[in-house]
Amino acid sequence: MSADNEREAREQLIDLAAQFYDQFELGEIPHMSVPTRTKNNIEYDEEKDVWVYGDRESTRSANSVRGARKLLKAVYTIEFLADQLDEGRSSTLRELYYLSESWDNEEAQFSDQDESNQLVEDLEIVSGATREDFHMRPEESGATIMGPLHLREQTRRGEREIHCQKDVGEGGYQIPNNPDTIEFLDCDADFILAVETGGMRDRLVENGFDDEYNALIVHLKGQPARATRRITKRLHDELDLPVTVFTDGDPWSYRIYGSVAYGSIKSAHLSEYLATPEAQFIGIQPADIVEYELPTDPLSDSDVNALESELEDPRFQTDYWEEQIELQLEIEKKSEQQSLASHGLDFVTETYLPERLDEMGVL
Amino acid sequence: MSADNEREAREQLIDLAAQFYDQFELGEIPHMSVPTRTKNNIEYDEEKDVWVYGDRESTRSANSVRGARKLLKAVYTIEFLADQLDEGRSSTLRELYYLSESWDNEEAQFSDQDESNQLVEDLEIVSGATREDFHMRPEESGATIMGPLHLREQTRRGEREIHCQKDVGEGGYQIPNNPDTIEFLDCDADFILAVETGGMRDRLVENGFDDEYNALIVHLKGQPARATRRITKRLHDELDLPVTVFTDGDPWSYRIYGSVAYGSIKSAHLSEYLATPEAQFIGIQPADIVEYELPTDPLSDSDVNALESELEDPRFQTDYWEEQIELQLEIEKKSEQQSLASHGLDFVTETYLPERLDEMGVL
Repeated sequence: MSADNEREAREQLIDLAAQFYDQFELGEIPHMSVPTRTKNNIEYDEEKDVWVYGDRESTRSANSVRGARKLLKAVYTIEFLADQLDEGRSSTLRELYYLSESWDNEEAQFSDQDESNQLVEDLEIVSGATREDFHMRPEESGATIMGPLHLREQTRRGEREIHCQKDVGEGGYQIPNNPDTIEFLDCDADFILAVETGGMRDRLVENGFDDEYNALIVHLKGQPARATRRITKRLHDELDLPVTVFTDGDPWSYRIYGSVAYGSIKSAHLSEYLATPEAQFIGIQPADIVEYELPTDPLSDSDVNALESELEDPRFQTDYWEEQIELQLEIEKKSEQQSLASHGLDFVTETYLPERLDEMGVL
Repeated sequence: MSADNEREAREQLIDLAAQFYDQFELGEIPHMSVPTRTKNNIEYDEEKDVWVYGDRESTRSANSVRGARKLLKAVYTIEFLADQLDEGRSSTLRELYYLSESWDNEEAQFSDQDESNQLVEDLEIVSGATREDFHMRPEESGATIMGPLHLREQTRRGEREIHCQKDVGEGGYQIPNNPDTIEFLDCDADFILAVETGGMRDRLVENGFDDEYNALIVHLKGQPARATRRITKRLHDELDLPVTVFTDGDPWSYRIYGSVAYGSIKSAHLSEYLATPEAQFIGIQPADIVEYELPTDPLSDSDVNALESELEDPRFQTDYWEEQIELQLEIEKKSEQQSLASHGLDFVTETYLPERLDEMGVL
């Protein structure tokens, strides 16, 4: 339950501030430790099947003016967040930054937004809570869902029960910033199809793919927002739905798949909250480009570099990805998902997706 | 009614193809004329209060192989669009481009997507219909609406009646790609507030601004999609709602206002369909930066260039804009809409917007 998380988040923040008082009382210089957030301090957690931070830590200590100022800012931010949670309000990261200008102590004001963003990330890591638990809203909106899912969303204006096919327009159900306000009431879907582009999402909806195949069509809108990744993970975990990811066939799109499946280095502390390691990649695969003779564009230099860096990324070091990426480097081509239209507008829903889903064991 | 537009669009396309036959019969070389689509051929239509194309025309004629190929592509595209309308289907511009690979005549296939995009624009201009009437969907999705509006949307799965406060989650009502499928049933709103950023849109919804001030909050999501501009215009024209635009205080955001109010040079043939010349700019105005002592960033060189080019843009040549832009060049600062949070999270809804709306005569 979301309300519990928020209560807990509030307590953890207060505990953190209390810890500084304890340190003062013990005659210690106040400090807090956070894991080092770099590529070198990322480890694969075999048990949870996600990437997490390793043991390296950085210490924020009041043993310098700079350090003391950092902790002062942390305390002011904790007070703001605790009040915000008390009042059931929320704010964006950008608002927090600007709001600090109204704080009575000038030393506590943030000098730029990177500083306040990083502090909130530190607080997430140290408290084990998420930004959403603090009621910090993202700037980026989540995307949409279309499919046989009936849900209840707790809004500020009361509860709303919405069926994601029957109660929405062609645009679908707009995922709220914090999908933990959603309770799943009933779901007739057999799997999730997360789709990169709006053009393809609209094609699938027009062709009635969600209806015919009991699919939940989640629009990723390019690199997916936190809200989109979170609801995808919850749908997988709570409703036991297989997750499939359908993108263009180029290295940037494989990263979109990666962000659904593995999360990012910058937010490895959130992998358990946002990542769905069981998510499977449907395509466009380099093998599809060859098999279906899709229209292509040549790989650019930056495409080639991105593919080569993926070959070295531990998250892509599987037989499957090595084979596909090496094939792509060999054929030197990429294809968009909408290029399937070269075989007609129904090819994707009548042939391509059913064949791939069958191969993958989803259908 | 949308169905009428589509029937008419289909007839106009067929007429255009028929015209080529007539030209053949008369022994003429087939040709079609379209207005020249450049800055030099844009005129202000005093009566309609929008920018439209002037009298200069370019002719596409079959008097060269290149020209003949262009007309062949036009005829193939017309056939595709007419069939699509017959079958009640739709497609994206990108799908059209890829689909041409399946056409039996290789000469009719598009060599790149610019070519197919431009042809569809030519067909819009010549037929007087819109891309939406041809059932060509945009790649970009529309944004969302929150406010006291009850509407009926005609979807492929039947009609949906949706109240944009009571029947939606915190994310609001997702505007469909073609808002002409919407009928407005009932509206208690007094005005439209079109908002650039997601962070500000969420602030207004959290603070209940739509409820307290009977506002329809339309999220622009940066540079607004056609669907967002179209529904804004329809809400203005059909429900007589004043339109106000609320963006960051920088030259790029003034262009967002411009695209709502005046449209763009590239789509001047659509001004009557998409532009709302009566739309008023709320802010952030350079005068607000001074008056409310907002946190600022310095203008970059490209900001200064953009402001100077706006001073020369006929659409910004009013006393109001000249004064504001000159003030901004003088103070050399810009501010984001969320910087209002420096006076507290409620300042925007309790002070700033009510004051501005009162000044503007909207409240």
